[in-house]
Amino acid sequence: MIHARFTGRLVMLGFGSIGQGVLPLILRHIEIPREAITIVTAEERGREVAEEYGIRFVVEPATRENYRDLLSPLLRPGDFLLNLSVDVASVALMRLCQELDVLYLDTVVEPWAGGYTDPSLTPSQRSNYAMREAAIALREATRGGPTSITAHGANPGLVSHFVKQALLDIARDTGAPIAAPPPASDRAAWARIAEGLGVKVIHIAERDTQVADHPKRPGEFVNTWSVDGFVGEGCQPAELGWGTHERALPPDGQRHGFGCDAAIYLMRPGASTRVRTWTPLEGPFHGFLITHNESISLADYYTRRDADGSVAYRPTAHYAYHPCDDAVLSVHELAGKNWQMQPEKRLMTDEIVSGMDELGVLLMGHARGAYWYGSRLTIEEARKLVPHNNATSLQVTVAVLAGVIWAMENPRRGLVEADELDHDRILEICRPYLGQVVGVYSDWTPLQDRGQLFPEALVTDDPWQFANFRVT
Amino acid sequence: MIHARFTGRLVMLGFGSIGQGVLPLILRHIEIPREAITIVTAEERGREVAEEYGIRFVVEPATRENYRDLLSPLLRPGDFLLNLSVDVASVALMRLCQELDVLYLDTVVEPWAGGYTDPSLTPSQRSNYAMREAAIALREATRGGPTSITAHGANPGLVSHFVKQALLDIARDTGAPIAAPPPASDRAAWARIAEGLGVKVIHIAERDTQVADHPKRPGEFVNTWSVDGFVGEGCQPAELGWGTHERALPPDGQRHGFGCDAAIYLMRPGASTRVRTWTPLEGPFHGFLITHNESISLADYYTRRDADGSVAYRPTAHYAYHPCDDAVLSVHELAGKNWQMQPEKRLMTDEIVSGMDELGVLLMGHARGAYWYGSRLTIEEARKLVPHNNATSLQVTVAVLAGVIWAMENPRRGLVEADELDHDRILEICRPYLGQVVGVYSDWTPLQDRGQLFPEALVTDDPWQFANFRVT
Ligand SMILES: NC(=O)c1ccc[n+]([C@@H]2O[C@H](COP(=O)([O-])OP(=O)(O)OC[C@H]3O[C@@H](n4cnc5c(N)ncnc54)[C@H](O)[C@@H]3O)[C@@H](O)[C@H]2O)c1
Ligand SMILES: NC(=O)c1ccc[n+]([C@@H]2O[C@H](COP(=O)([O-])OP(=O)(O)OC[C@H]3O[C@@H](n4cnc5c(N)ncnc54)[C@H](O)[C@@H]3O)[C@@H](O)[C@H]2O)c1
Repeated sequence: MIHARFTGRLVMLGFGSIGQGVLPLILRHIEIPREAITIVTAEERGREVAEEYGIRFVVEPATRENYRDLLSPLLRPGDFLLNLSVDVASVALMRLCQELDVLYLDTVVEPWAGGYTDPSLTPSQRSNYAMREAAIALREATRGGPTSITAHGANPGLVSHFVKQALLDIARDTGAPIAAPPPASDRAAWARIAEGLGVKVIHIAERDTQVADHPKRPGEFVNTWSVDGFVGEGCQPAELGWGTHERALPPDGQRHGFGCDAAIYLMRPGASTRVRTWTPLEGPFHGFLITHNESISLADYYTRRDADGSVAYRPTAHYAYHPCDDAVLSVHELAGKNWQMQPEKRLMTDEIVSGMDELGVLLMGHARGAYWYGSRLTIEEARKLVPHNNATSLQVTVAVLAGVIWAMENPRRGLVEADELDHDRILEICRPYLGQVVGVYSDWTPLQDRGQLFPEALVTDDPWQFANFRVT
Repeated sequence: MIHARFTGRLVMLGFGSIGQGVLPLILRHIEIPREAITIVTAEERGREVAEEYGIRFVVEPATRENYRDLLSPLLRPGDFLLNLSVDVASVALMRLCQELDVLYLDTVVEPWAGGYTDPSLTPSQRSNYAMREAAIALREATRGGPTSITAHGANPGLVSHFVKQALLDIARDTGAPIAAPPPASDRAAWARIAEGLGVKVIHIAERDTQVADHPKRPGEFVNTWSVDGFVGEGCQPAELGWGTHERALPPDGQRHGFGCDAAIYLMRPGASTRVRTWTPLEGPFHGFLITHNESISLADYYTRRDADGSVAYRPTAHYAYHPCDDAVLSVHELAGKNWQMQPEKRLMTDEIVSGMDELGVLLMGHARGAYWYGSRLTIEEARKLVPHNNATSLQVTVAVLAGVIWAMENPRRGLVEADELDHDRILEICRPYLGQVVGVYSDWTPLQDRGQLFPEALVTDDPWQFANFRVT
């Protein structure tokens, strides 16, 4: 089914697991001549996929020095730059697209190469908070300009729409149905809904159970999506949107001292920071508190301010990620080497033999306790649905597709974040590719089964305090 | 080659991975009629192996109530009880053996079923420290009685002999060779050697790289040796021999307040406690600070006291265990479920496709920095050497064999710990089964590569403080 017709040109920057996975979706759902598409990437990887679809493939890494000269000749007003690369600064590309009057989408606010682990930067400067602030600083100047969607993959991205759907479900199930949901542009109205329902904490709770036909080798970092992307964000500080119900800043918690102040960071890498969370199929588990754009953007979006501007309500929001088992082992090994990267990388594709990505949002603290809403996509389904995808990539690529379509349908919105897109339209496009989409209530709390063998310092009168979630 | 001739009867209690693995070694190296051996175990597991060797196989779990009636009829003076079970209290068996004038060996001081995780016991009461105290309380009463070797597998066990050899190597390589090593019974002399060399910390540093032909499934605990044994000890408190160079008790560190006082415990399970360590092939890694008998016995054995009895020297000693990758994942899953055991267990045997157990002792703080001495045994070598073994079990079973032979050669020593056995004789018996036995110096310290991306609280003027090793 064709969702959009595009008469401009499309430049895809980067052609790794997400680029390769989204191309067949674009060709299936957007009417665009193949000659109008160009792939610009840093390496030969993916050339055979580009050739399979007859798409021009240019190997030329974008750098701080060459990106204008490299991309400007490929882009005329009304064209589209789809950034699915690592190591290319998103903000630089967004500025260029505004200048050139070109639509834009990325899945993460990326710095230039090395930016995640530059020891000359402070942890705050290396944070997603700082990167998002740099992106949203463009908001005013881009108003009415070409649409630039920042950070719209699965998470960040799709999960923002899951949150909206989950809020509507909880409202329905607690006897306060919302007949006409507010538009995405009405942040205050959505924040009032979350506050009214009593949502205190939002986890992006993900359990990836995909496994391969051969084990991870020592010295090999294995993952189901970008190894560079995961290691980069894993070495950034753990970050979380910091809710108004939280009683005490964590001992290693820091405020940034600039910007929207919706989030804090911990003085340690997210890949060494674990939190308790829950998904319907896995049950309770430990996830990594990897920093993500949506931890901050969700907390910011769902902030309600009093008339004097002071913050009246905000949920705590963060990622709680159980990557595939081989990636858990890879993180363990990487931590053991004090974050000196393994010599080998492997992005699992054809060798996956089973498993699924159970990816959703867990809204906690409301009248029904905890509610998980999300996608259960198996590797078998993913392969059947779209070539060149695994379960993890398809949840991302379909969200990229949906974002691209939304930008084409809404071409003059300037810079927008996931939360500002219409969740209904995005979910409509994505749903056929998400496997089972389910909402499940649970009486799980992070106090369950705690303190049995050893005494633990627990906040027993409010299970939803971050101190209870954190694994120490 | 026959090491010993035995005319008594041998009862093997428990016939899991260690029991099945040691049987062919016993039959190969000890002259004993097959009819003189009886296996008593709790389940059918291993029956086909017993039948392969023509050994009587009795399925009857030993309990607090029945163990005397079950075992007494099978044991006459001069016989041998080889305890390789889980869930049967070692101290009860040792008492019985003293009464019956029977030789005895076990590989761990085991409590009755549930003793490791009995929430009605304090962490101190559930500790290996308490279990060892109960065992060594028999020392006086058993003097001159039948030899009862407590805790003699690979570790605890073999590693005590590695420590002695390592000390002699370091003495040789630092220009102070020891021509005539003191007898094992002369603790004070051995403690003076360790002190004189400046040894501050002893790790049992182990990296098991064995991997299987199919991945761990969710809900399955996988290991290369007893799952019950590992989960039991992993849920005990983290424990470590506590050296005289340590400046500060860990924030969660506790003294027991009774017994030899050589060790402390942390108020948390060892399976959730990680420490930095190093082996020659793996390099730096994070190991689990799983409690072990040798952490306490080594610290106790190498204690030098002043004339007034006060402690003048003691090394810090503990385990730093990187089990096979599937066990790392199993521990991660178990911790995520707050130590509620997985429904399935799998002890890896035939499905292992590659890997080795790199098991040794890492002596640190002396003039040459760090010295690792130990065994590198691959799965291929283990299989070639002895049937019904993997690399992990063979390091244990050959140490069990050596202990059994030593007891037969020294039948009236009463209760003895590994450190009190002659390391030369034990290593002589073991060496053919240990693969490469190597000693390697290193300039590694736990300060290497630290504090690069985030500030860390480090003790920079003494790398060997426990606070530097601990992963927080
Ligand atoms: N929001 C989400 O849900 C989500 C999920 C997965 C990935 N991502 C992000 O999407 C991006 C791509 O992920 P992936 O799994 O495809 O990564 P990948 O590592 O598989 O591929 C990265 C691609 O970028 C290219 N590249 C590297 N340096 C470049 C440069 N200087 N100029 C141009 N191209 C360059 C590489 O050649 C490769 O084609 C990453 O930034 C990742 O963090 C977001
Ligand atoms: N010191 C070391 O290096 C070392 C190394 C490995 C194992 N171990 C110890 O050796 C023991 C055996 O290890 P494994 O890997 O063979 O364990 P396993 O789990 O494979 O086997 C345990 C055996 O004990 C038997 N058993 C259980 N309950 C019993 C009961 N009530 N009465 C009699 N038998 C009973 C089981 O039937 C089984 O045969 C464990 O205690 C383990 O901790 C020590």
